Amino acid sequence: MDVDLQLAVERLLARYVHAIDDGRLEAWPDFFSESCVYKITTAENLREGLEAGIIFANSRDMLRDRVSALREANIYERQSYRHILGQPCILSDDGAEVRSETSFLVMRTVQDGDSVIYATGRYLDIYAISGDIAKLNERIVVCDSSRINTLLAIPL
Amino acid sequence: MDVDLQLAVERLLARYVHAIDDGRLEAWPDFFSESCVYKITTAENLREGLEAGIIFANSRDMLRDRVSALREANIYERQSYRHILGQPCILSDDGAEVRSETSFLVMRTVQDGDSVIYATGRYLDIYAISGDIAKLNERIVVCDSSRINTLLAIPL
Amino acid sequence: MDVDLQLAVERLLARYVHAIDDGRLEAWPDFFSESCVYKITTAENLREGLEAGIIFANSRDMLRDRVSALREANIYERQSYRHILGQPCILSDDGAEVRSETSFLVMRTVQDGDSVIYATGRYLDIYAISGDIAKLNERIVVCDSSRINTLLAIPL
Repeated sequence: MDVDLQLAVERLLARYVHAIDDGRLEAWPDFFSESCVYKITTAENLREGLEAGIIFANSRDMLRDRVSALREANIYERQSYRHILGQPCILSDDGAEVRSETSFLVMRTVQDGDSVIYATGRYLDIYAISGDIAKLNERIVVCDSSRINTLLAIPL
Repeated sequence: MDVDLQLAVERLLARYVHAIDDGRLEAWPDFFSESCVYKITTAENLREGLEAGIIFANSRDMLRDRVSALREANIYERQSYRHILGQPCILSDDGAEVRSETSFLVMRTVQDGDSVIYATGRYLDIYAISGDIAKLNERIVVCDSSRINTLLAIPL
Repeated sequence: MDVDLQLAVERLLARYVHAIDDGRLEAWPDFFSESCVYKITTAENLREGLEAGIIFANSRDMLRDRVSALREANIYERQSYRHILGQPCILSDDGAEVRSETSFLVMRTVQDGDSVIYATGRYLDIYAISGDIAKLNERIVVCDSSRINTLLAIPL
């Protein structure tokens, strides 16, 4: 078992969620390769073979555009988010690409109020590993619930 | 500190919860040794020394029977589950067996609806480690709440 | 990347939360250095540069006093708590001190009832590492919600 590989993936995951939860959305696209796929879909869609996701991007530039759009739409955002991830499960490693599956939980907190469960699901990831740096070539975010707000305020 | 041991336990835990959450219940008994103990109990029962658990099995075959029973009972299951585990805490390692304690959180999501907290608690585990493969000799699932549905729809 | 450092931090975190969730509060101060800072504050306070936290201690002895106070106040505590932490994100390591950021989720369970989200947020930690043992020189607990009960029943 490759300890360095496991830790490289874990480190990327930890930095990814801290960037989002700290509100540093502009740092988010940098966790992806320049030519990447990012998709948000639901377990139901995946089960039924429906390709259409809720959100789809196939380049890092599209992710940057999405951050700009979120910034414009959420000027007065008074909520915060908190990702808690499970341990990544490395599924395969062919030397060039590493596939993994990771469960996620995201909570939303109104500034003066309660925290509620915002989303649960799993990441189906493909990484390019270079030294101890991992980058996402692909992330498919599979939400457990089919009732996902299409006006998602943050990346997942 | 034994890095390989820690990662072997983490890897088993990650694969265990993904198998359940992905609905691959038939894979679940394979995470246990042939002669194993699996018990679900509550923190209150444990504190009061009550041996009787909510669910008890003392062989892998009994776990297979349980999966069959769950499959018959839940033909139209429209809910999904998501386990998120804490970091396993290795308590002892005598060369033959490894004991650990791991916190868990399980959420339940109705297909088109919200996610709620289904169960929280901790796993008290005993592993047999062979190379980088861990198997469960014993798992005692200690739920924090005493109000556990005896008709549990999934393994914990 | 330093595997031993990462695992030393993870191990301290796992033992820390298990001590609290198992009700072994007297063990909690031992995770800190003798001369330490422990503070609970909110994301809003931190953002606005307000120094005043909800709880503040600057020695291990003050943490012991706090445990004594909690023990006297909560004789008939009928609730339990469960911490689930994210992966620690090591921010810096200058040889003497290690800084990290870790997301947390704490749930509260009434003995016969449901579990609810009690707090979410992040730990901003400074560790002293000696061999494979980590001790907390400083922990700033930053809660996402500003509505934190000042009569916190447990350490975070």
